[in-house]
Amino acid sequence: MEGAARGEARCVTVIAGDGIGPEVVSAARRVVEATGVALTWEVCEAGERVFARGLPSGVPQETLDSIQRTRVVLKGPLATPIGSGQKSANVTLRKLFETFGNVRPIREMPGVATPFSGRGIDLVVVRENVEDLYAGIEHLQTPGVAQCLKIMSRKGCDKIVRLAFEIAVAEGRRRVHCATKANIMKLTEGMMKRAFDDIALEYPTIEARHILVDNCAHQLVRSPETFDVLVTSNMNGDILSDLTSGLIGGLGFAPGANIGADIAMFEAVHGSAPDIAGRNVANPTALILSAAMMLRHTGALDAARAVEDATLATLEQGVHTADVRAEGSISTTAFTDAVIENLGRHATTTRAREHREVRMPRLSPARDYVRAERRRTAGVDVFIEAASSPEELGQSLERIAEDTAFRLKMISNRGTKVYPAVSAATDCVDHWRCRFVLRDAAPEREVDLAILALVARVALQHRWMHLEKLLEIDGVEAFTKAQGED
Amino acid sequence: MEGAARGEARCVTVIAGDGIGPEVVSAARRVVEATGVALTWEVCEAGERVFARGLPSGVPQETLDSIQRTRVVLKGPLATPIGSGQKSANVTLRKLFETFGNVRPIREMPGVATPFSGRGIDLVVVRENVEDLYAGIEHLQTPGVAQCLKIMSRKGCDKIVRLAFEIAVAEGRRRVHCATKANIMKLTEGMMKRAFDDIALEYPTIEARHILVDNCAHQLVRSPETFDVLVTSNMNGDILSDLTSGLIGGLGFAPGANIGADIAMFEAVHGSAPDIAGRNVANPTALILSAAMMLRHTGALDAARAVEDATLATLEQGVHTADVRAEGSISTTAFTDAVIENLGRHATTTRAREHREVRMPRLSPARDYVRAERRRTAGVDVFIEAASSPEELGQSLERIAEDTAFRLKMISNRGTKVYPAVSAATDCVDHWRCRFVLRDAAPEREVDLAILALVARVALQHRWMHLEKLLEIDGVEAFTKAQGED
Repeated sequence: MEGAARGEARCVTVIAGDGIGPEVVSAARRVVEATGVALTWEVCEAGERVFARGLPSGVPQETLDSIQRTRVVLKGPLATPIGSGQKSANVTLRKLFETFGNVRPIREMPGVATPFSGRGIDLVVVRENVEDLYAGIEHLQTPGVAQCLKIMSRKGCDKIVRLAFEIAVAEGRRRVHCATKANIMKLTEGMMKRAFDDIALEYPTIEARHILVDNCAHQLVRSPETFDVLVTSNMNGDILSDLTSGLIGGLGFAPGANIGADIAMFEAVHGSAPDIAGRNVANPTALILSAAMMLRHTGALDAARAVEDATLATLEQGVHTADVRAEGSISTTAFTDAVIENLGRHATTTRAREHREVRMPRLSPARDYVRAERRRTAGVDVFIEAASSPEELGQSLERIAEDTAFRLKMISNRGTKVYPAVSAATDCVDHWRCRFVLRDAAPEREVDLAILALVARVALQHRWMHLEKLLEIDGVEAFTKAQGED
Repeated sequence: MEGAARGEARCVTVIAGDGIGPEVVSAARRVVEATGVALTWEVCEAGERVFARGLPSGVPQETLDSIQRTRVVLKGPLATPIGSGQKSANVTLRKLFETFGNVRPIREMPGVATPFSGRGIDLVVVRENVEDLYAGIEHLQTPGVAQCLKIMSRKGCDKIVRLAFEIAVAEGRRRVHCATKANIMKLTEGMMKRAFDDIALEYPTIEARHILVDNCAHQLVRSPETFDVLVTSNMNGDILSDLTSGLIGGLGFAPGANIGADIAMFEAVHGSAPDIAGRNVANPTALILSAAMMLRHTGALDAARAVEDATLATLEQGVHTADVRAEGSISTTAFTDAVIENLGRHATTTRAREHREVRMPRLSPARDYVRAERRRTAGVDVFIEAASSPEELGQSLERIAEDTAFRLKMISNRGTKVYPAVSAATDCVDHWRCRFVLRDAAPEREVDLAILALVARVALQHRWMHLEKLLEIDGVEAFTKAQGED
């Protein structure tokens, strides 16, 4: 078929994974092989047994080398040893190969009854996969106050938004929603909204709609059939994509792809389900549909559609594993046999979508993807640990800043201004953001040293743990005001 | 009734609000008055007209004074002028009065058909309301990289978790779920999980279950009837609570309370819906049920239950506003008349819950709520903007740190270690976290100055914008490692 037509067999790295992984990966391999696509497998290891051998990443070098060679991975779920302090091997693979886009198609499955059956749910969640809170950058600020950095880049936003629109084009979809919390987080979540607004202009035939993420969750359970492509940031996408898979019968039916510029990994959304491992009862549908996405990615469009059609036909016939209903359920292998038997057939009520290949343009690799014409340091936020009252702290800092280049503008506690005093009942914790602004303009070099000199003076009387420069970029303040700050 | 039995009429601050606010607030007032509870209203202003008069907070001093006096508020939705740069007056009120707990009961409404009808959804979402990403502390780090601080305190976690358990007790509920992303954010979201694990021990008769927030969204659409009380952090709660209100027919049926140590505000979840304002068609149910929560809060338990029972009875009779179905719908005032007519009756299929008053213990007001025995500064993360490669930057920083008290341990880019080199395909942006650790132990005072001296040297060659001290608190590292860092 298609792969063979290109001359030689495409090679794919396959990782069986942990728990039910080997069973569902085997099912997917058998279905792929039955399509006749010219494809060879490089079988590699990752996960539990690798951790057990003492490799802290859970991913051996041979596996990394294979992925670098083949650039396409089909994988089962990998377990992370609990309480070992190890990072998830799933996440490690995504990070190492910068698979920035997590793509999760969700569609109503014939024969799988849900509260939404008959409404024709058919959407794709496109989730940013490497930035945001998932960078996992945390610092305890005081013994009782923790902080995680939510970091988003314009390059990252552009890449995921672009991917969403390209998927819409490739799949003949008409609408892209972008879900953010831009009304509260104007710089971070707002950055994704601005990327969306800008890139949407290049796709005039596709309807672009921004939606607040809370309202999006509401609408997804009220009228899920109105969604087509849904692009969002990493943390939002984690919640929304698991929500959507619940709408169509659960994780047994949720395939996924992790897309990078050079490498793509295909895997089901579900975990390793150790409680049912080795019993030949797991539902292989999600991994079979993930394999169909893999076939499509490698250009085998017809084979991909054949696998999807056969799977839908099988479910429509009422063939099902025990996660759907215990009554009348069959084994993983018997379900797989039925799908293979159905290759060439399709369901009577529904068909797999026609797809083109996704043509993701390569964005600029420049690290300084956005550049500034002009910039100026306007001050510094000094984060201080103190058990004192806002008044005591404020008066002390005013004295410290006398005769310096800075004046204390305000102090906030978890985002609410508490000094100079406002008539607020804020129940303060011992973590204060103390905002100092430059009294007079000065050369940047001097400002930098003046900040360090100010902090040295503060440090004589107070405990600081965190600094943020206040920048103005191209004439615009590059920081937000506190609640109550004017 | 109860209020009168205590001697004098309870006074409540009432804010009609914008859009449909005056109509639904009027409906709720009429129902409350019809119960015969001894209660007087102080009518106050906030929102659109106040913004229009030029007051940037949208909340005049008279309103703040009234709330300080009455300590109980019934309010309609307040509109925020779009594009004006103003903060939401709703948020301002919550922040000023430190209403740390957002309580949203969600239950199946008789007569309101949804995909989940007949399953008996009856849960309460208890959302932390003042911390987390909603503190809105954002700093652009480079022209193309934005940051928001996610800040959570143990005091804040303890307060919200305690409130959730006390609500469970007061309402005779048996189970409390806590939804976090503690597996990814071990210090921030993990703090809420630890608070939950600790406080649950004091409520041995209540089943305590931790659930990952993504799985929680999945389970809420798969088996919402298994949830009873659900406590979560601010951003998670924003999404999950809007999800749950979608399950029972939409925002027209979602009441809410914002609970503080001294002050409580009762308001519907919905907005001001300017498109249908003034037309006597809005659904007042959410505000009537919010008023019932207010009655309960003031100790008028019987009146509260009577209002809830009358509302459920009215809906069960098929009486409805146009948001439910256009066919057979009636006006806001006619619906309200029907509820008043039904006071003393209850639905045949369902009853309002029996409640006790919530007895929220007052937690320690100490700002240093958690204290440390021992602490040590182990190094510093210096965040640098640079367009160079990780190798160039790393080698430059190694040279800079020679002859200082610190050595460069690693550099990460959006959480993934990129120096010393790893075999990763990271598509870097111009924002680098450069981790310097102390070579040898030294007195804290000296370490502080050494950090500033190091940064001064870095600043000669690189642009820095953000510092985080690396603390060890009571012998434990108070910061996380990068992906790939050992």
